[in-house]
Amino acid sequence: MVDSCQHCDQCRRGEEQLCREGNTVTYGGFDRVTQEMTQGGYSKHVVVRQEFVLRVPDGLDLSRAAPLLCAGITTFSLLRTWNVGPGSRVGVIGLGGLGHMAVKLAAGLGAQVTVMSRTPNKRADALALGADRLLISTDPDAMAQAANGFDLIIDTVPNKHDLNPYLPLLDVDGTLVIVGQIGPMDEMSSVPLLLGRRRVAGSPIGGIRETQELLDFCASKGILPETETIRMDQINEAFERMERSDVRYRFVIDMASLEGSAEAVA
Amino acid sequence: MVDSCQHCDQCRRGEEQLCREGNTVTYGGFDRVTQEMTQGGYSKHVVVRQEFVLRVPDGLDLSRAAPLLCAGITTFSLLRTWNVGPGSRVGVIGLGGLGHMAVKLAAGLGAQVTVMSRTPNKRADALALGADRLLISTDPDAMAQAANGFDLIIDTVPNKHDLNPYLPLLDVDGTLVIVGQIGPMDEMSSVPLLLGRRRVAGSPIGGIRETQELLDFCASKGILPETETIRMDQINEAFERMERSDVRYRFVIDMASLEGSAEAVA
Repeated sequence: MVDSCQHCDQCRRGEEQLCREGNTVTYGGFDRVTQEMTQGGYSKHVVVRQEFVLRVPDGLDLSRAAPLLCAGITTFSLLRTWNVGPGSRVGVIGLGGLGHMAVKLAAGLGAQVTVMSRTPNKRADALALGADRLLISTDPDAMAQAANGFDLIIDTVPNKHDLNPYLPLLDVDGTLVIVGQIGPMDEMSSVPLLLGRRRVAGSPIGGIRETQELLDFCASKGILPETETIRMDQINEAFERMERSDVRYRFVIDMASLEGSAEAVA
Repeated sequence: MVDSCQHCDQCRRGEEQLCREGNTVTYGGFDRVTQEMTQGGYSKHVVVRQEFVLRVPDGLDLSRAAPLLCAGITTFSLLRTWNVGPGSRVGVIGLGGLGHMAVKLAAGLGAQVTVMSRTPNKRADALALGADRLLISTDPDAMAQAANGFDLIIDTVPNKHDLNPYLPLLDVDGTLVIVGQIGPMDEMSSVPLLLGRRRVAGSPIGGIRETQELLDFCASKGILPETETIRMDQINEAFERMERSDVRYRFVIDMASLEGSAEAVA
């Protein structure tokens, strides 16, 4: 996000991501100043409105700070919106770029964190990232035992899927927040919502003030995304690896690798 | 609801409807004292736990108080849960037993109330019940203009239907609460949820303390369900009329009509 209207109620309260006139996304967006399409951050220089410049705190490795501005703020913002803190019971479905940040940040805020996964394969990774336990969603006994056990479940699965198995895991007034899938969800039953006054919600990224807060929080707590730095000329290989889920957990392109590559600059 | 465990966290905070061990419903429920099936209120005498006895305030017509204990408390409880008060923008989908109480109670709490309906036929009824306007959900222009205009939408439609047209009507952080359909909902897109941090929830009836509060509120404000009183021997006819939506808005059976009918008592 590189711009917004700056005068609507959402912008004024620091929620530029919810700008009434639409925020300007970093790439493929409509630039409200130049009237051109925004070209993203893979370039030597980017011009943005000064209100959208963030300060990376000293000591926060630049390559690992990068994913905080998307996966990091998306999960941090919802953790703040739903008041997660010490003692909160948080579940995370999916352990990719968003999921691993959800685990780290929720744990950093003092929550009890459970990763939900179809198989036990991810147990070691989940615990290493700061989760307290792994709940295997294909184990009916484990799922039944976990009923009513969560204040918040963060669903990072990026495709159409069934929410019904997860809704009974929420406690009364608990919320499942969708951040992965952008599009249709499978048919959902209203029964677990009605019986437990449960909720299903979505959440976008966060505002600029909150993003700065996240950077400062991560620097002070030493919370960083797990990244693998690649050169620009490795981008196609990285895409292929991403498609087969061979990434832990985010690729970061070293923009210095662009220097000297006339082709890439062009 | 005639009983609950009385010792779980939900019962202790007066939310017996959310009792961890399940509340005892008035009919067809498992009576935790007698171990028999509960038989409902259509009888000369009902024995209930004293904590579940409510006081109908003087001056509140008994026949019109009856539906407050179901349609009334279901809508009142969610209006309180979502902090509806003066200035709240509330939408109501469906204008039956639940819907007409949602309109009256939301208006009674000072909210601006909009009834959402497929046709303009219900405009006069909606306004007479206290709504400020009717929004015709089949009119694309009216629906587009109404976008982001509601803090809360109460969906009382009692069958499987599509929520997607209604989600964009919610403002940022707004909630659509399902109280009609008990079962599967049509596929829902996560996009309006993500873009506006919107929520979909369900809500059951309310607790006993809140139900007493509702009775007192209705007596003091003169808010009453619209009812038609029938004799017990009219019950089959009433069922047929209900099936063709020929009821405004709740039938109430006069239990005095049971006296002298040996057959009905048997």
